[in-house]
Amino acid sequence: MEISKLGEFGLIDRLTSDLSPVNSSTVAGVGDDAAVIDSGDHETLVTTDLLLEGVHFDIRYVPLKHLGYKSAIVNFSDIYAMGGTPKQFLVSLGVSSRFTVEHIEELYSGIRLACQIYGVDLVGGDTSASVTGLIISGTCIGEVEKGKAVKRSGAKPTDLICVSGDLGAAYMGLQLLERENRVAAESGADFQPDFAGKEYIIERQLKPEARKDIIELLKQHGVTPTAMMDVSDGLSSELLHICKTSKVGCRVYEDRIPIDFQTAMMAEEFNMNLVTAALNGGEDYELLFTVPLVEKEKIDAMPGVTMIGYVTEESLGAMLVTRDGADIPIVAQGWNSLAANE
Amino acid sequence: MEISKLGEFGLIDRLTSDLSPVNSSTVAGVGDDAAVIDSGDHETLVTTDLLLEGVHFDIRYVPLKHLGYKSAIVNFSDIYAMGGTPKQFLVSLGVSSRFTVEHIEELYSGIRLACQIYGVDLVGGDTSASVTGLIISGTCIGEVEKGKAVKRSGAKPTDLICVSGDLGAAYMGLQLLERENRVAAESGADFQPDFAGKEYIIERQLKPEARKDIIELLKQHGVTPTAMMDVSDGLSSELLHICKTSKVGCRVYEDRIPIDFQTAMMAEEFNMNLVTAALNGGEDYELLFTVPLVEKEKIDAMPGVTMIGYVTEESLGAMLVTRDGADIPIVAQGWNSLAANE
Repeated sequence: MEISKLGEFGLIDRLTSDLSPVNSSTVAGVGDDAAVIDSGDHETLVTTDLLLEGVHFDIRYVPLKHLGYKSAIVNFSDIYAMGGTPKQFLVSLGVSSRFTVEHIEELYSGIRLACQIYGVDLVGGDTSASVTGLIISGTCIGEVEKGKAVKRSGAKPTDLICVSGDLGAAYMGLQLLERENRVAAESGADFQPDFAGKEYIIERQLKPEARKDIIELLKQHGVTPTAMMDVSDGLSSELLHICKTSKVGCRVYEDRIPIDFQTAMMAEEFNMNLVTAALNGGEDYELLFTVPLVEKEKIDAMPGVTMIGYVTEESLGAMLVTRDGADIPIVAQGWNSLAANE
Repeated sequence: MEISKLGEFGLIDRLTSDLSPVNSSTVAGVGDDAAVIDSGDHETLVTTDLLLEGVHFDIRYVPLKHLGYKSAIVNFSDIYAMGGTPKQFLVSLGVSSRFTVEHIEELYSGIRLACQIYGVDLVGGDTSASVTGLIISGTCIGEVEKGKAVKRSGAKPTDLICVSGDLGAAYMGLQLLERENRVAAESGADFQPDFAGKEYIIERQLKPEARKDIIELLKQHGVTPTAMMDVSDGLSSELLHICKTSKVGCRVYEDRIPIDFQTAMMAEEFNMNLVTAALNGGEDYELLFTVPLVEKEKIDAMPGVTMIGYVTEESLGAMLVTRDGADIPIVAQGWNSLAANE
């Protein structure tokens, strides 16, 4: 059977559905942003992410320092998405012979910068040869108060659905970088891309941040999300994960989805559907979370957090309410959109 | 600068030499088989390993179930090499379009078997597309009593150097598999390799085990190694790591290096230097450790453990004493022998 028939998440379900832990320290496994391990007075969170050249990044327009930074951020983001604090980071590299020591130093400088800014210790490094291209495998260890890890499974009907920051910018940044790269290839050495007025979407793609600030803000206001995950694959995909794991439905309002001005301008320039980009773009590394309805006033007072809808009974499905009031089912992109060929 | 000028370990040193931890939970970082993290009443160990098609394995003669098993074992081995117990395992796969759902299920069946046998919980799975070939990134979490993690840095002059099992068999198994694969390619579909009398070296290459039993044996006898690591890159390389990190020298006796009969027969058939294979072969996943001289009698009584030499002052260097009594400096293979070209 071709993997595309099951999709990435269908495949993972099939491979891991009947696992039953034998160690008492195993609190939660597959199916959240990070695994949860009992460590006595607190819980340890562990997450791992694989970034592959030609699939997750294109070295022709991604500076190595940014790539290193991003490879750390995507892991930190998974720890924050569980309500935790990232503490240690390990990285394994597969490096082909076209990379020099200076290249790898550049990559590491980005990893180290991210660790420094987020207060994380780099505790493991491993490098091996690769036959083709660059492979970055990151692992992050985090901590969370005992019993306080926020999973995907806790959303309840009437909960508010919130998202931090804005969506779709990283995807639009990628479209712009790819276009400029094509133009550069056609124009030869003299071509200089002009990113004036588009700095934000470029930065969102090349150098994303993890929303440590939102986790702190929630703590300050005493708000504990009932479910949370980070937006790495796209809002649609993440909403469906929360709905499936929590056994609920949702209603999300198209006109409530936060979108930056540069993202909107770029969509117009590319003649693309803006909402599709915001729903399916991915790589935003914002936090998607649900909170009990009673927390509405606190959420209203939080800068950079938008309520985009609410949780419903499972039987009502996962619906997007369009600007003209129509309900359309939310569908996610999956493996198919990512699949690469040999 | 080409990476081969520094070598793999030189590169890692350069990238990570000046790291200083900011989190109090970070006990030890880069430079051991696993990172050590304070978890209150115990310490958490974390290790990660990347297995790449075309570099670390050849899918033409490595069954996927064995490969899955091995990808878990190499990580468990790193936890045992710190004196710990593996508890949780996470795996990320990069999978190209030539692999089917059934292929990945086969790979997972090996991972799950290893987890079952060693009492480890599989807590994370992630699969993404890959442009070329199969990529397996494993992460293992283990536990060790507080302050009891065995590092590479504790070896002292006069300590005995011990190794479990036998060495060089996995390397010889690889040579045999590669030869049979070449013959098969030349002979066409009718060829059936004959591994009679060579089962042990084949199994050592395809389905290695981690030495959980040796860790239990050491505990039973109340022996705490002063330094330990697993033999993944080859005895020479690991001896030099311990010598460098512990700031000591060593004398290892050629005629004391444990070698299995099948390994010796195979070396003769291939007209290869047997000791070179045992010193530099790698992938044995045996444990190399040092113990205080006073533990000699206890070590003598342990089945499957061989004393191969002793620790000396740093100024005396790392020396191999040959069968005819000559001292020759121990040198390690490094990146060069592993480097692949695009």
